[in-house]
Amino acid sequence: MFRNFKMVSKVVFGRGCFSQLGDILEGQRSGKNAVMVFLMDDVFESGPLKDRLPMKAEDLLIWVNVDDEPKTKYVDQLTTQVKKYMVAKHDHLPSGVIGIGGGSTMDLAKAVALMLTNEGSSADYQGWDLIKNPAVYHCAVPTLSGTGAEVSRTTVLTGPEKKLGLNSDHTVFDQIVLDPEMIADAPNPQRFYTGMDCYIHCVESLTGTYLNSFSQAYGEKSIELCREVFLTDTPDADDKLMMASYCGGMSIAYSQVGICHALSYGLAFVLGLHHGIGNSVVFDYLEDYYPEGVREFRKMMERQGIDLPRNLVSGLTDDQMDTMINVALVLEPLWENALGKDWKTIMTRDKIRELYLKM
Amino acid sequence: MFRNFKMVSKVVFGRGCFSQLGDILEGQRSGKNAVMVFLMDDVFESGPLKDRLPMKAEDLLIWVNVDDEPKTKYVDQLTTQVKKYMVAKHDHLPSGVIGIGGGSTMDLAKAVALMLTNEGSSADYQGWDLIKNPAVYHCAVPTLSGTGAEVSRTTVLTGPEKKLGLNSDHTVFDQIVLDPEMIADAPNPQRFYTGMDCYIHCVESLTGTYLNSFSQAYGEKSIELCREVFLTDTPDADDKLMMASYCGGMSIAYSQVGICHALSYGLAFVLGLHHGIGNSVVFDYLEDYYPEGVREFRKMMERQGIDLPRNLVSGLTDDQMDTMINVALVLEPLWENALGKDWKTIMTRDKIRELYLKM
Repeated sequence: MFRNFKMVSKVVFGRGCFSQLGDILEGQRSGKNAVMVFLMDDVFESGPLKDRLPMKAEDLLIWVNVDDEPKTKYVDQLTTQVKKYMVAKHDHLPSGVIGIGGGSTMDLAKAVALMLTNEGSSADYQGWDLIKNPAVYHCAVPTLSGTGAEVSRTTVLTGPEKKLGLNSDHTVFDQIVLDPEMIADAPNPQRFYTGMDCYIHCVESLTGTYLNSFSQAYGEKSIELCREVFLTDTPDADDKLMMASYCGGMSIAYSQVGICHALSYGLAFVLGLHHGIGNSVVFDYLEDYYPEGVREFRKMMERQGIDLPRNLVSGLTDDQMDTMINVALVLEPLWENALGKDWKTIMTRDKIRELYLKM
Repeated sequence: MFRNFKMVSKVVFGRGCFSQLGDILEGQRSGKNAVMVFLMDDVFESGPLKDRLPMKAEDLLIWVNVDDEPKTKYVDQLTTQVKKYMVAKHDHLPSGVIGIGGGSTMDLAKAVALMLTNEGSSADYQGWDLIKNPAVYHCAVPTLSGTGAEVSRTTVLTGPEKKLGLNSDHTVFDQIVLDPEMIADAPNPQRFYTGMDCYIHCVESLTGTYLNSFSQAYGEKSIELCREVFLTDTPDADDKLMMASYCGGMSIAYSQVGICHALSYGLAFVLGLHHGIGNSVVFDYLEDYYPEGVREFRKMMERQGIDLPRNLVSGLTDDQMDTMINVALVLEPLWENALGKDWKTIMTRDKIRELYLKM
C-alpha cells in the first residue's frame, strides 16, 4: 500500500513573482467581503515588505510571533480572532489564509485554514488524518527555505501533551509562491539552521528503510542543491536553496525522517528549541548513525562560520529528561525508518538518555 | 510574469500500486451509474493486464489504437462514443476517464475528459488556454515512460491544420498512478525512443534561454536518471525511467523544448512519424546545436543496440516539404528558447530544409 500523495495545487516560482500574489488571490476572492487573511511573521513589521502586500479594504493582517514554535493554543487563539473579525463583518468564512514567513508561519497559516472549518481545538487533530473538512483556500509565501513546510501535508504543533502535526491531505497548500528574492535577507545563523533542516531530513530519508525511487530522486537533488549552496560560491544560491527545500519536502512523500528529527522533537518540547537549530544540535552527535552526513554537515558549519550552542541539557531535572525521551519515542515511524523493524532493541531509553546528555 | 504552474493533484508511486486503482477510483464515483471510462492501448487486448482493471458493471472499456498519433478527429469520435453510451444509460457525465498506455493514450484520455465538458470539436481548442470548462476527473496509468504526458498541461493532437496541443490547466490529470511494474514489458526500440523523448527534451530545456532554477533542478535530475537507465546496468531501471519521465515533464514548467521538437512535429505531421522516434531521428542531425547532448545520445543508442531509420525525407514533394517547414515554424516559443529572440535570422526556411533533407 503506497501513499496517494496530495500535491500542492499550484506553484509559481521565479525572482520577483511575489508581485503576482495580488492577481493570484483575486481569482480566489468570493463571498460578501471576499476577505483574505494575511498571517505574517512579525519580524517584517518594521520592514518594507508589508507595503507590498496585495491587501484590499476588508482584508485582515495579523502579525504572528514565532519566537516560540507554534502551539495548538496559539492556533486556537488566531482562529478565534479570525472568526470574530468575520462575525464583525457579518460574514461567514474568509476567502483565504496566506502565510508569509518561515516554516512556523506557514504551519500557522495551514492550521488556521483548517481550524476555520473544523470544530474544537487544534489539539484534537494532532495525529494522522483526523481532519474532517477541507480547509479554506490557503497559500504560502516562504521567506526562509529549508523546512519543506511549503509542500508538506502536516503542520507541526506543540500541544498540551505532545509535539505532533495535523497530518492530512487537507493540510496541503492550494498555492505556493516561491520567490527567491524573498529569502535573500534571511539572517544567519537562522538561514543556515533552516537549510540544515532540509539537508538533515534528506540524509535521514536517503539512508532510511522506507525509501523508493520517487523520494530518492527528490532527496538526491535536494542534497546536491544544499551542497552547492553551503559548500560552494554558487550564483543563484537563494534560488537553489528554495528548490532544495521544495525537493526535500517532496522527498518525504515516500520516506521518513529519522533519529535526528525524533530527538529534536524532544528538545523542542522541553527546551522550546526551534526545529532548525534543534536538528543541528542533535545531528552533530549522530556520527555513529549517519557518518558521511555528519562529516559533511560539519564542513558546511565550518564554511559558514557557525558555532553550535552546547550544554543545553545538563541542567534538566529527571522529570524533564523523562518527558524528552517520551516525546522522542512517540515518533515510532521515524525510529523504524532509521533502524528497521527491530528499532526498540537498538534504541533503548538509556541509549536516548546517553545521547541527550551529550547535548 | 511567471507561469502559475498547475500540478497533478495526486500521485501514487510504487511497484504494484496499480492494484490500488480500484480504491482510488471508488472515491471518485458519483452520479446515477458512477461510470468510469477506461481508455486502454489496444496492444493490451491480448494480455493479462485487462483482467486487472477495476471495472464495475456499468463501466466502459474502449480499446484505443495509437498506431497513428492522436488526431482531433479520433478524439471527437471517442467523445461521441462516450456520450452515446451515457445517453443509453440515461445518465449525464461519467465519473472519470482513465488512460492506460503511453503518451498517446494518456493524451487521448486528457482530450476526451476535456471534450466531454467543452462543446464542439477538439480542433477548436488547439492552442493555449482556449478550454473553457473543467474536464471530468481524469487519471493516467503510464505503461511507457518518457513523454512526461503524465504531468504536462497539454494533450498533443494532430488537427486538420496543425499539430498542436490543448494547453490548459484543466488538461492536467487529477491523479497519476506510477507503477514501475507497468513499464517492465515495454518492447525496444519503443522503450528507448520514448526514453529519448525525455532525454532530448531535457537537453533542450537545460541549454535553452527560458530556464530557471525550478526547471533546472528537475531537468538535471531527469537527465541523470536517463544516464543511469541507458548507460549503466542500474537496478530499478524501470523505477528510474518512470521518475526521469516525471521529472522531465515537471521541468517543462519554466522551460521549453527546442529545435529537435520543432522539427520532429513537422516530421510527424507529414510522415505520421511517432513523436519518440521522430525526436531521435532529428536529434542525430543536431550536433551543431546540442554537441554534448547528441554525442551522449549516440552512446546511448550504441549501448542499447538501436538502428535509426534513415532516408525518410528524400521522396517528399516540394509541397510536402513546405508543409513540414510550416508546421515546424509555427512553434515559435521552441525556436526562441533554443536560439534566442533573434532566432528568425538564424533559422531560415532554407536552413530548415537543409536539415530535413539529411533525414
